[in-house]
Amino acid sequence: MSKSEISLDIDTDQVRKRLIDFLNTKVTNAGFKNAVIGVSGGVDSALTCFLTVEALGPENVLAVIMPYKTSASDALEHAKQVIKITGVHEITIPITESVDALFAHLPKADRFRLGNAMARMRMIALYDMSVSFNGLVIGTGNKTEILLGYTTLYGDSACAMNPLGDLYKTQVRQLAKAVGVPEVIIAKPPSADLWVGQTDEDELGFTYDEVDRLLFLLVDRGLQPQACIKYGFSPEFVDAVIDRIQRTKFKRIQPPIAKLGFHSARSGTIPSPDL
Amino acid sequence: MSKSEISLDIDTDQVRKRLIDFLNTKVTNAGFKNAVIGVSGGVDSALTCFLTVEALGPENVLAVIMPYKTSASDALEHAKQVIKITGVHEITIPITESVDALFAHLPKADRFRLGNAMARMRMIALYDMSVSFNGLVIGTGNKTEILLGYTTLYGDSACAMNPLGDLYKTQVRQLAKAVGVPEVIIAKPPSADLWVGQTDEDELGFTYDEVDRLLFLLVDRGLQPQACIKYGFSPEFVDAVIDRIQRTKFKRIQPPIAKLGFHSARSGTIPSPDL
Repeated sequence: MSKSEISLDIDTDQVRKRLIDFLNTKVTNAGFKNAVIGVSGGVDSALTCFLTVEALGPENVLAVIMPYKTSASDALEHAKQVIKITGVHEITIPITESVDALFAHLPKADRFRLGNAMARMRMIALYDMSVSFNGLVIGTGNKTEILLGYTTLYGDSACAMNPLGDLYKTQVRQLAKAVGVPEVIIAKPPSADLWVGQTDEDELGFTYDEVDRLLFLLVDRGLQPQACIKYGFSPEFVDAVIDRIQRTKFKRIQPPIAKLGFHSARSGTIPSPDL
Repeated sequence: MSKSEISLDIDTDQVRKRLIDFLNTKVTNAGFKNAVIGVSGGVDSALTCFLTVEALGPENVLAVIMPYKTSASDALEHAKQVIKITGVHEITIPITESVDALFAHLPKADRFRLGNAMARMRMIALYDMSVSFNGLVIGTGNKTEILLGYTTLYGDSACAMNPLGDLYKTQVRQLAKAVGVPEVIIAKPPSADLWVGQTDEDELGFTYDEVDRLLFLLVDRGLQPQACIKYGFSPEFVDAVIDRIQRTKFKRIQPPIAKLGFHSARSGTIPSPDL
């Protein structure tokens, strides 16, 4: 057995149908008919926009473009392309002035802190548009970045629902191709657009092709590290990925509440059948 | 049985000990020794600051004051009082310019949208301080506001852990008195400081004394609405509170992920014993 034999191929017809159904059902059941999506020009938000349009119709979808002064011009162009093809409503909300005004009070911030603030400022704009457009914020995160914790807490991970969260990045690309996302968007190096020249794979130190296969073995197959190493992954890589999953667990759960009585404020424990 | 007989009295010595232990254990286990708290001048953040100082020592706590141009001057004065008594580090990060710069791109925003953006801008500043001070953000939300959804999602509800989340507002006041929070802070009308003259009880349309007793019957005792009415609560009030709890459930849970395979990206379902 070799890692090159691990297949992450999905049945794109079936997955497409299930995600459209998920979006339709969840938005409707929440009492809404509109959706709001931050469209960055990347493949995740492009696919999310395409699927949401299939679920709700383009007239019920608002694409929000939120450039910072360092945003790549081709990213903005790709976002415009997605909007044009899908026919959704659009608005551009620049975040340069607000981010810079906040950081005028926060000297000595490095690019990581600035990047986190940018992701969170975009969340503020999206959630404001959620009220103004009367639509739910559809998340664009995929399974790879959720498991690796490669997201900004309360930033790009903030949403009302997440259609792509059970698809690895390489599977997002397969589905994007199937639904008609432009090839130039699928093929370009993924970037969170948090500083000039940033690419996910440079920052993470490994490729999505590689890590998706390992995550599949660890998470979906439930294999032990030793078993993964037999597939040809280096022990260091396996350790590093497991460590990332463990270290970033706090991003995937609700913050703990000090429990004093038997029934806490978390909805799951409200005992009355009427609630 | 009458609603006036419902007692929400707590054993303040015992609760104080348990919350200090919660803070100490959770911060230490996460590999930290510092904490960051947004101190508004209100009783919740004052009590949180007092307890965190007892748990970690004043030298390991950073109080962050984040005024907007409409913030009440007595609120700022009360925040300063808390900082002085507890001896924590402090920093002031005004959010006026950043909020106003964002809303220059969002015309027609009402005070509710502005208020939500303010709460979220404070989250950005707190989380930036979390990096810069190398400390965890301690939440200040209480059980009443969590159950009623009287919080801004990804705003004031954002935190690494929540010590007061199982205490009703009236119980927060009891504990605040016991640990030495100044009486002027405990006695003043609670406000989220999102617009001039805002008070929680005006906005909610009922008092904390009243709603805390009803929540206790519904949530802690698990009583049906009919049984609550027998205690003297009006049917309309009981319905309105149950409706609020139901409508705001999305604020207390993680956003749903479309599930495709057996093992999702949520940590709870990672099957490997090593993870």
